[in-house]
Amino acid sequence: MTYCVGMRLDAGLIFMSDTRTNAGVDNISTVKKMHTWEMPGERVIVIMTAGNLATTQSVISLLDERSKAPEDRKPSILEAPSMFQVAREVGRTLKEVIQSNATTGMEADGAFGATMIIGGQIAGSEPRLFLVYPEGNFIEASEDTPFFQIGEAKYGKPIIVRAHDPAMRFEEAIKLLMVSFDSTIKSNLSVGLPLDFVTYDMDSLSISHAERIEADDPYFQTVSNGWGHALKVAFDQLPEFAFE
Amino acid sequence: MTYCVGMRLDAGLIFMSDTRTNAGVDNISTVKKMHTWEMPGERVIVIMTAGNLATTQSVISLLDERSKAPEDRKPSILEAPSMFQVAREVGRTLKEVIQSNATTGMEADGAFGATMIIGGQIAGSEPRLFLVYPEGNFIEASEDTPFFQIGEAKYGKPIIVRAHDPAMRFEEAIKLLMVSFDSTIKSNLSVGLPLDFVTYDMDSLSISHAERIEADDPYFQTVSNGWGHALKVAFDQLPEFAFE
Repeated sequence: MTYCVGMRLDAGLIFMSDTRTNAGVDNISTVKKMHTWEMPGERVIVIMTAGNLATTQSVISLLDERSKAPEDRKPSILEAPSMFQVAREVGRTLKEVIQSNATTGMEADGAFGATMIIGGQIAGSEPRLFLVYPEGNFIEASEDTPFFQIGEAKYGKPIIVRAHDPAMRFEEAIKLLMVSFDSTIKSNLSVGLPLDFVTYDMDSLSISHAERIEADDPYFQTVSNGWGHALKVAFDQLPEFAFE
Repeated sequence: MTYCVGMRLDAGLIFMSDTRTNAGVDNISTVKKMHTWEMPGERVIVIMTAGNLATTQSVISLLDERSKAPEDRKPSILEAPSMFQVAREVGRTLKEVIQSNATTGMEADGAFGATMIIGGQIAGSEPRLFLVYPEGNFIEASEDTPFFQIGEAKYGKPIIVRAHDPAMRFEEAIKLLMVSFDSTIKSNLSVGLPLDFVTYDMDSLSISHAERIEADDPYFQTVSNGWGHALKVAFDQLPEFAFE
């Protein structure tokens, strides 16, 4: 599996993904699931992927090839007039790849399935964040739904639900996502370090910060150990149940 | 769905289950998933169920009927010589019910599937805790695996992984399970209040405490609100990420 989170903040967009991929527990490797396209001053597009690795790599390669060979008549995500059109193009490509691999109907579709989070901004419009389904359709983040998760999303959801605040600075948001990823990693072997993250400052039209957090990263260790301790303290402070 | 947790403690066993059942989001009702059999001084058996409601109710009814009509030659869980044999009998019954409903092969089996947590003690042996699979086989809790979850287990797992301690008193364990259930309820509509819990004191051979926590329970509200606040404080105390 995989775990990726894309989040809207007042300050911009933030994306974090793990790097573990597995075909069974005896076949584990490290693959980057965070992909960025940047035309400084004009547009920034970030895509994170979860699901069948052959499918997601194929989609990313197709998007990348088309963006480099504009004479090819296929639409390029670097030429799409809006983030909405970028999401449509990614959805269409994803659906095509899944259907070209699947030979028979819905069951086979499932085996080759993938979901993607797309975010970014194009000059002249707002930053936008989308979740693309294997069927090629997609939904957009809003004030009420300010973040999307794909992959092993359940373990790390409660802390985001509780602590997300659109006014967060990126430094706090990175801490929040690290806590969410740490909770997931502690509970599920199929999500693992290193982590990749990208921050995008509203209206900057270039990637603000992209970094890889390795397994021995001192800040991640501090968050992981500190969170275990802080949870214990928080838990101890709650009043105990009293039998009648 | 459902969420149930069974946990071994030095002090005995504790069980907690939600009560929400749904066949689609437009067909939600409240059903007890916690079932107890008690022969004071001789044995206590607790079973929690998750999965297809027709299957789980049928299994519980069969186990119950057999325990009340011992002349029927089917083995009764009230006469089984050990908790291991109780788990075998429950597994066998579960498998039979699933197979009698499923007409064709594995796919149909899945649709009628269910999992169960069984715990209890029989005079002359230790308390034991088992997880029974739809196939009828089962695994036992141990010092290394001191708790089992069934149903929507992922949201509430990280806090149990972090805070479980076999030396906990029941009052602390109830608090821990309430936090785990609250995190799940906040993230997933298919798990809901009221909650049922049962505590079993080691070697008491009778149910120590059985209670239903209603949605307006003041202690649950305190834990739910207090945990949100405590998490926020704990989160704020962690050092922030610093960009290089």
